[in-house]
Amino acid sequence: MKKSDLSDLAQRTPEPPVSWLMASALANPQLISLAAGFTDHATLPLAETTDLFRELLRRPRIGRAALQYGTTAGDPELRHLTSRRLHALDTAAAGTPPPSGVCDPERMVITSGSQQLLYMLSECLCNPGDLVLVEDPTYFVFLGIVQSHGLQCRGVRMQADGLDLDHLEAQLESLRRSGQLRRLRLLYLVSYYQNPTGITTRLQKKRHALALLQRFERHAGHPLFLVEDAAYRELRFHGADVPSSLTLPGAARRVIYAGTFSKPFATGVRVGFGLLPDGLRQAVLRVKANHDFGTSNLLQQLLRQALATGHYEHHLQALRPRYAAKARHMANALQRHLPHDVAWVPADGGLYVWVTLPPSMPTGRTSAFFQHALAHNVLYVPGELCYACDPARPKPNHAMRLSFGGATPRAIRLGIQRLGDTYQELSP
Amino acid sequence: MKKSDLSDLAQRTPEPPVSWLMASALANPQLISLAAGFTDHATLPLAETTDLFRELLRRPRIGRAALQYGTTAGDPELRHLTSRRLHALDTAAAGTPPPSGVCDPERMVITSGSQQLLYMLSECLCNPGDLVLVEDPTYFVFLGIVQSHGLQCRGVRMQADGLDLDHLEAQLESLRRSGQLRRLRLLYLVSYYQNPTGITTRLQKKRHALALLQRFERHAGHPLFLVEDAAYRELRFHGADVPSSLTLPGAARRVIYAGTFSKPFATGVRVGFGLLPDGLRQAVLRVKANHDFGTSNLLQQLLRQALATGHYEHHLQALRPRYAAKARHMANALQRHLPHDVAWVPADGGLYVWVTLPPSMPTGRTSAFFQHALAHNVLYVPGELCYACDPARPKPNHAMRLSFGGATPRAIRLGIQRLGDTYQELSP
Repeated sequence: MKKSDLSDLAQRTPEPPVSWLMASALANPQLISLAAGFTDHATLPLAETTDLFRELLRRPRIGRAALQYGTTAGDPELRHLTSRRLHALDTAAAGTPPPSGVCDPERMVITSGSQQLLYMLSECLCNPGDLVLVEDPTYFVFLGIVQSHGLQCRGVRMQADGLDLDHLEAQLESLRRSGQLRRLRLLYLVSYYQNPTGITTRLQKKRHALALLQRFERHAGHPLFLVEDAAYRELRFHGADVPSSLTLPGAARRVIYAGTFSKPFATGVRVGFGLLPDGLRQAVLRVKANHDFGTSNLLQQLLRQALATGHYEHHLQALRPRYAAKARHMANALQRHLPHDVAWVPADGGLYVWVTLPPSMPTGRTSAFFQHALAHNVLYVPGELCYACDPARPKPNHAMRLSFGGATPRAIRLGIQRLGDTYQELSP
Repeated sequence: MKKSDLSDLAQRTPEPPVSWLMASALANPQLISLAAGFTDHATLPLAETTDLFRELLRRPRIGRAALQYGTTAGDPELRHLTSRRLHALDTAAAGTPPPSGVCDPERMVITSGSQQLLYMLSECLCNPGDLVLVEDPTYFVFLGIVQSHGLQCRGVRMQADGLDLDHLEAQLESLRRSGQLRRLRLLYLVSYYQNPTGITTRLQKKRHALALLQRFERHAGHPLFLVEDAAYRELRFHGADVPSSLTLPGAARRVIYAGTFSKPFATGVRVGFGLLPDGLRQAVLRVKANHDFGTSNLLQQLLRQALATGHYEHHLQALRPRYAAKARHMANALQRHLPHDVAWVPADGGLYVWVTLPPSMPTGRTSAFFQHALAHNVLYVPGELCYACDPARPKPNHAMRLSFGGATPRAIRLGIQRLGDTYQELSP
């Protein structure tokens, strides 16, 4: 079969970076992977899940419903509980409740992980050739979706507290001037403990970003959406929660909020959710009916049960100190084994630390650093994978995404030590 | 939000018929639905699923793996067991083993129901404007996918033992003459107890269809695939199994086989699988990495456990007499309550009976028959929903798809009686 026998979409769809990262890991069982976005293995809720299923399947009425098809939008009770949880989170974070109705179950779609929502949003909002704004760097699987759908990207620089708003405005202005604003569809933010940088965006920045999008809408001629991917929000172990964009004025019409239960509960349970403006939600539901006519009802009922019984919250409370400890192990090891010209910020949540090496030390797949690290049996995600193809700048290529999620504390220490050794070897 | 604010794909994506069928059902709790493709509620494996999860999660190594991310292609052990099962089915049906390697786990992708595979196939093989051949009538959700992706359809007439091969050849020849064969990508068959007609395609017909596709390939300039959707294969309660197209010469290069565990085991457990030619499988995996980077590992492990322990086979054996009894109830009721100018064939498997009324009695959503049936509190799937838009013929509009899967025996009898009453009322 020739490449040209495939559709345009298939021809555009790249081999995902995880494939060769995983192939590297499989080829070498001694390898310490700080690359995979796996969650902590030891705290996965085995006993809880057994109990939840027993409870669920013990009652024929509920049990049978769990084993039967559900609706495309998702279980009403799971949507209700998720809506209530989100409302409570945002009320606690903001000090006042979010605008009336914005968290309602009627605005929600349950998806197979938040990944599926990101896919369907791209399908429903963008035609090939359209444009999206992303953080620079951003979540590399989203970049894969974007490339597959033939979309162009513009990157918005990041600061320690989120988007560089001046750069966002400059990008919007430049698109307006070049007539390309009519192709722009959305701004994609991973706003909590960002993948890959660990940065959390301040509410004030989300407010200004949304206002900027609204200001430029009349030049675009159509809605410009703010997509807030909050996948890591609940994996917070230091500091206070930040209110989501749903708390902002106008959110109901222009904010798309993507959340997930997979990361906080268990990644083997692929259940995410989205809150979407009317009209767009209907479009996503129509497309989801073709994808799978609804996420597995059994998984949805498992999470409904976990939320209703408090198991979910309990598990989360147990998880947080565990991740805090792992992040501390990573920070201590980075402090100890890497020199001062290597920049990084300790994590307050999520799974990642972003480590920037001097520009003289590239980290890409073909770089000496990556190859030496592999020879030392340690794997990381090369930073360049997290940058969009933006004609306005060359891709930065001297950072690494390190994950403390899946590795044991010992592997974290050893892995960082090996990265330190690699650095030493290659330093002039 | 205006319709024009959505992508071309979203604008093309129709409201799925199930939405308004379900809305009709929800609006009237007294309604007997012979429309839904639900499986038998009473035999859903509650106790088995509880046991399987307990076993699975009791062992930390396997249990933790089940709660963690898996690979995009699916669990190797589930693929191995599925491959072995399929090999055994085809060996038993054909009397000889299928060609070497054609059922191998390395050719398999585990998907979120077979629905997701159908979606990704359309994405990977077809550009907007391309053509697919479908049975006339065919599975209406596939028609939804096709419409969403902007594809054209040509329908191939059905006979009691599957495709009308003369009509298939005529359609291919007509496409060749009009120069449209270059847009044709695949022939889609629901080959066992077809949704909606209940027809099973003989092996000889699949052989000839594959040969015809191969013969016309040189005019197409690219591969023409035979997609065999075998979703209902295991729901067989009368007669012998038919070998799949995988047993045919050249199958490894041109046959795509779609199977599912959802219907036979539990529709709330959305796990399907596909066997695909090399090259196409890689394309589907790249696209699936963007959809969801792998079907829920917990569901996959549940099915692995069900297959490995024999629970799956045991459940299937219990299921078959149950469906046979329901199909008999439906046949008896049809015999009793509908006149002789109404045509139907008793089911040997699957979930459906296709009932053809005289051409003078249309059954569509706006028809008197549909409305009167609703007033009598009985719902069916109007036959016209199962026909592609084919410029070569008007859509037949006087059949109904009746499902005996989800309804109780009593509801089946009563539902058919009400359809009989409806018919009486409207007869001249």
